[in-house]
Amino acid sequence: MVLKTRLTESFGLNHPIISAPMAFAAGGRLAAAVSASGALGLIGGGYGDADWLAKEFRTADNQSIGCGFITWSLRKQPALLDLALASKPKAILLSFGDPVPLADRIKQRGVKLICQIQTRRDAERALACEADVIVAQGTEAGGHGEKRATFTLVPEVADLIAKERPETLLCAAGGVGDGRGLAAALMLGADGVLVGSRLWASKEANVSEQMHAAALRSTGDDTIRSQTMDLARKLDWPRRYTARVLKNAFIERWHGHEDELVTVADQEASKYRAAWAAGDPDGSNTFVGETVGIIKDIEPASEIIDRMVRQAETLLKSKAAQFTVTA
Amino acid sequence: MVLKTRLTESFGLNHPIISAPMAFAAGGRLAAAVSASGALGLIGGGYGDADWLAKEFRTADNQSIGCGFITWSLRKQPALLDLALASKPKAILLSFGDPVPLADRIKQRGVKLICQIQTRRDAERALACEADVIVAQGTEAGGHGEKRATFTLVPEVADLIAKERPETLLCAAGGVGDGRGLAAALMLGADGVLVGSRLWASKEANVSEQMHAAALRSTGDDTIRSQTMDLARKLDWPRRYTARVLKNAFIERWHGHEDELVTVADQEASKYRAAWAAGDPDGSNTFVGETVGIIKDIEPASEIIDRMVRQAETLLKSKAAQFTVTA
Repeated sequence: MVLKTRLTESFGLNHPIISAPMAFAAGGRLAAAVSASGALGLIGGGYGDADWLAKEFRTADNQSIGCGFITWSLRKQPALLDLALASKPKAILLSFGDPVPLADRIKQRGVKLICQIQTRRDAERALACEADVIVAQGTEAGGHGEKRATFTLVPEVADLIAKERPETLLCAAGGVGDGRGLAAALMLGADGVLVGSRLWASKEANVSEQMHAAALRSTGDDTIRSQTMDLARKLDWPRRYTARVLKNAFIERWHGHEDELVTVADQEASKYRAAWAAGDPDGSNTFVGETVGIIKDIEPASEIIDRMVRQAETLLKSKAAQFTVTA
Repeated sequence: MVLKTRLTESFGLNHPIISAPMAFAAGGRLAAAVSASGALGLIGGGYGDADWLAKEFRTADNQSIGCGFITWSLRKQPALLDLALASKPKAILLSFGDPVPLADRIKQRGVKLICQIQTRRDAERALACEADVIVAQGTEAGGHGEKRATFTLVPEVADLIAKERPETLLCAAGGVGDGRGLAAALMLGADGVLVGSRLWASKEANVSEQMHAAALRSTGDDTIRSQTMDLARKLDWPRRYTARVLKNAFIERWHGHEDELVTVADQEASKYRAAWAAGDPDGSNTFVGETVGIIKDIEPASEIIDRMVRQAETLLKSKAAQFTVTA
């Protein structure tokens, strides 16, 4: 069974699904498993560890994968882009910052450029650098993001694309956790989806067992957007972005007390990093989106993707049949 | 053309669409136009003006409509519920507060109970009072609401309903502005949709020309959730709720300066109310959701609804046809 869209045609995929390049969680193993299943897997370039990145590309060696970067961070370490491009990626995704200064280097190498955006204004910037794909990411997404929601951002960007540069492909990100989300995204005007949290909750993701367990216990109500983890890690995230994580002891202590956190960031940074290294879901953070409320199991990526596509197919066919033409 | 769902069957509708009971904007004229088109129109009970409410029910006299209330406000003026029930409404919608203390009075009269909720926890409360319909309202909605997004709240509540009380119907609210939104909501597990902003932008809504014009100039990026208008109006909204409005001079002045606003609320309240009465989109607020970014015209409600259903039909049928069964 194949669901053909402009994305599958353009990228030579069986399924209109891209895995999110989640920092830390999305290594070569996850990206390779996703690509092997017929979707497109992306390694998460994260905050720029060249050795780690090279190792993850080697891990995924026999699969056609891509890589995603945090734009503002990559601009401080442009050599990482050279490293990724040298690995002949299928695509490079840029998110969180202005893609224009980096776009030409990617496109000149014949590599597809995917720009993830969080607002309509961002989408205009992505169109300005002739991105091959725009990923419209809603606030329900896990990890870093902004305030606009998937349900309205996708059709608004679809209209913008139709008017300004119709050959641009569009994917929805934020909240896509099963076939219902995939089918809904297609209805909203997307050519495919970018899946984060649902693949974070896979066997191949680099996630601690305790964090997976914390996620399986949680509902979507249990997540929150916060800046505290970036203050504690002393990361220079632009203020417009926050990260969605599970509410926990760390959030309880620091969310709403950001000014105080900044004054003790040196000692908190080492505590946070130690907790993170231990996979501790209380002392650091579990980066997951609202879609955690429909995730019941940690499964292989290929099973997650296969079921997502089968469920979308069933839904689309059954609902289409509900229309009755009357006088 | 008819799209049959559990909602149309249960309520005897042609279209699985309910109009949001928007305070002030949704009077008898809009509710009647919506019901006449084959959907279900609801008057917005707002903050409780008995004379206004009685008049609006009379205006809609020949149509089968319902009425929606702000739960915490209604509990202070329970006589308004008697007034609405005496008008033989097709349904009563309760939102923003615990519906349990009011539910029995509605159900005992044989009137359908619709509970609009903003979190999964709220949905559990709505199930506890055996609501006929749960409306899952996402943060992208205009006017009052909360933080969870439509795209994840709907499937999570659908799963809860399937487990706890499968006969409960589910509608999606927040971001449904055209047939793409209707089709997407059905994919996410809804039996229908509740439409606010798109019908706020109709000929029959009680909205000033200047506010309509401000909306048509705006994108979804131009909206914001804020508490300032409730502080300025001295309304006792529980702190968990904010209202989505267009950013404007009032928001620029007061958002982020809530403590200062409280100290001058007496004089600001009269200024705000005067601006509101004049339909002034700068001195008061234009209550509209992120879906404003795809609204291009102010049209009759019947045209909005007809096009929404036709577009959903086309989308569902065309996407279903894209699935190719292969080996």
